[in-house]
Amino acid sequence: MAESFTLPVVAHIESPYKEKFGIPRQPGLAPSVLGRVVLQGEYNQADCVAGLENCSHIWLQFVFHQSLHHSWRPKVRPPRLGGNESMGVFATRSPVRPSAIGLSVVKLEDIQLGDKVELIISGMDLLDQTPVLDIKPYVPYVDSVAGASNQFAEAAPVLHQVEFEPLCEQFCLQYYQQHTIDLKQMLVEILQQDPRPAYQRKASAERIYGMKFLNFDIRWRYTAGVNSIAAVRLLEINSCA
Amino acid sequence: MAESFTLPVVAHIESPYKEKFGIPRQPGLAPSVLGRVVLQGEYNQADCVAGLENCSHIWLQFVFHQSLHHSWRPKVRPPRLGGNESMGVFATRSPVRPSAIGLSVVKLEDIQLGDKVELIISGMDLLDQTPVLDIKPYVPYVDSVAGASNQFAEAAPVLHQVEFEPLCEQFCLQYYQQHTIDLKQMLVEILQQDPRPAYQRKASAERIYGMKFLNFDIRWRYTAGVNSIAAVRLLEINSCA
Repeated sequence: MAESFTLPVVAHIESPYKEKFGIPRQPGLAPSVLGRVVLQGEYNQADCVAGLENCSHIWLQFVFHQSLHHSWRPKVRPPRLGGNESMGVFATRSPVRPSAIGLSVVKLEDIQLGDKVELIISGMDLLDQTPVLDIKPYVPYVDSVAGASNQFAEAAPVLHQVEFEPLCEQFCLQYYQQHTIDLKQMLVEILQQDPRPAYQRKASAERIYGMKFLNFDIRWRYTAGVNSIAAVRLLEINSCA
Repeated sequence: MAESFTLPVVAHIESPYKEKFGIPRQPGLAPSVLGRVVLQGEYNQADCVAGLENCSHIWLQFVFHQSLHHSWRPKVRPPRLGGNESMGVFATRSPVRPSAIGLSVVKLEDIQLGDKVELIISGMDLLDQTPVLDIKPYVPYVDSVAGASNQFAEAAPVLHQVEFEPLCEQFCLQYYQQHTIDLKQMLVEILQQDPRPAYQRKASAERIYGMKFLNFDIRWRYTAGVNSIAAVRLLEINSCA
């Protein structure tokens, strides 16, 4: 590596997303899902976040820690383009890139100042334990660019209809009664995005997909939907071993 | 430093801003000012930016290389708040921060694919020779957050009226005729922002301020303006030694 800079980790993410598969591909797409930014070491001071309560949203600059073992390539195949078309790495948000830094805007829900300074966030697209290099306020008049365009990503992905097996529906209801956590709403927001890689979208409807979310193993499959948009059927919610 | 990551420099900025004083405090405020993102070493490949022409704007994640010698502090005094009020470093965009990474959205004007791959950008707030760690497409539906708010930075700064000494006006006209570069417009956009630190705003109107811009030394002073908004009077434009 020629010229480089070494940057400290100021926080870690606590997220219900325990594996890459299933995480929304951009922030803001699953707004009911909450996470935490936990400040680390010398950065774990209430002073460091004083005034942040005036911001509705924050930027997280983080490390794609589970992509670091991949070597970057000049061209990548973004899932959004069906996985068949390749684009320059700097024209994408691919996690496999020369500097493996991610950039996400998330909603700041609350600031907790206890032994650990923690920012409660929603709408993140971040894996559990993601190392955070920097936290910045979102400044709408600067960061929200009027008239900006991106022909490859003009709008949020088409959403699928999500159906629950009756046992899953019951489980979510009980979970809500016990924990006041709306697991059903979170699973709808996550699964309606279709996390499958494009080359699997034509695969057999028999195939079962799974992800770890919170402390659960979630299993689902795709069924024929309306207007060529697949429907998602949630089959099982099991506690992780 | 406890946990940290080392990230490569993928490009350097070529900017007419040759010193920190005078640079707009956020991107987008001086849209006539052009700069270049020059890809470096193994990243200097046309493939790396293929498809970027579909983006109107890009994110630059860069190093505040002239602030690295400062030690970070939990609280900083942002110039926007008059320099008297202190805020947590993570509630500001201060260049002096634990990970000295900056984040700017700039307009992508052109892509030049010669021996060197260069992105022509406008509206940047970046010092010449700034090291760039990453380039990403701006994705409006994700990055432009509807309804986001920031009580400390709700709108662009109030703009000052800029007047030119006749010799400066003449110089700009000649420069335009020779180079078709609108130096006057650029200087208006820069100076109307009032780059003075807040504690100097009440200083004597006799004080002369200066900055290096392009290959010029620019000198100006503040005069009493209308409605308590100072006017800026451009006094001299001299070639740098």
